[in-house]
Amino acid sequence: MTAVPAGPASDGYRVRPVARVESTLVDRASAPRQGDEGAPDAWLVFDDSVADGLRDLRAGSDVLLLTWLDRASRDVLIVHPRGDPTRAPEGVFTTRSPDRPNPIGLHRVTVLAVDGLRVKVSDLEAIDGTPVIDVKPVLDPGTER
Amino acid sequence: MTAVPAGPASDGYRVRPVARVESTLVDRASAPRQGDEGAPDAWLVFDDSVADGLRDLRAGSDVLLLTWLDRASRDVLIVHPRGDPTRAPEGVFTTRSPDRPNPIGLHRVTVLAVDGLRVKVSDLEAIDGTPVIDVKPVLDPGTER
Repeated sequence: MTAVPAGPASDGYRVRPVARVESTLVDRASAPRQGDEGAPDAWLVFDDSVADGLRDLRAGSDVLLLTWLDRASRDVLIVHPRGDPTRAPEGVFTTRSPDRPNPIGLHRVTVLAVDGLRVKVSDLEAIDGTPVIDVKPVLDPGTER
Repeated sequence: MTAVPAGPASDGYRVRPVARVESTLVDRASAPRQGDEGAPDAWLVFDDSVADGLRDLRAGSDVLLLTWLDRASRDVLIVHPRGDPTRAPEGVFTTRSPDRPNPIGLHRVTVLAVDGLRVKVSDLEAIDGTPVIDVKPVLDPGTER
């Protein structure tokens, strides 16, 4: 066992995009807050350095997509849920606000098509250019989002 | 709209731990592969810089915990699912292998207790010292993991 630092590392870790979102959504103001609120289908364009990791992805499967919401504010800890000023402010860890210390988006989507390094998915509320940082299978079909 | 780089950023983004796991699990070999496979309860010890983000977290709620699996290998793209050498190798993006380009763990847990910056959660398969990078509410109770 290696020694474990007592507190959070001050420098953290480097997350590297594995793909980018290609979407008709181009700004935060027009993006739905969740994928099931009218978000469009979108393409994910993977870096060829991770092609092997993709090789078993098939159309029809449901996956969890993790994105890095690079337009978010990282110093926000309290928000109005869903950006609604009439709702009482809440700590970010009980909301899905994109503004949070590590602005990671979690999206459950269906794979619609796979064309080499390009993967089409359903109902993605992330905007054009958003970095994708991970793709994971849904463990229990119908029970993850 | 700001200009969007065509490919993945070569330098990436800095993820900063917001908490650390305190667990009786001390190495990967003894850790269950999923939380529902006999994982123990564990404490999350948050950094006081993010205390405001936690303020509405209550015992009894189900949350999604994102961790940075800092013992993982980031250059692995093909694995035997569940580390079982009798299973055919698979691309990492269709597995939950901790070894992957961005080793982010996703854990659905129940909050058992909140004591200031310390939060007790159920059935967490992450090992002692693992950095926690985000906490999100479950959107549909009973339908996320």
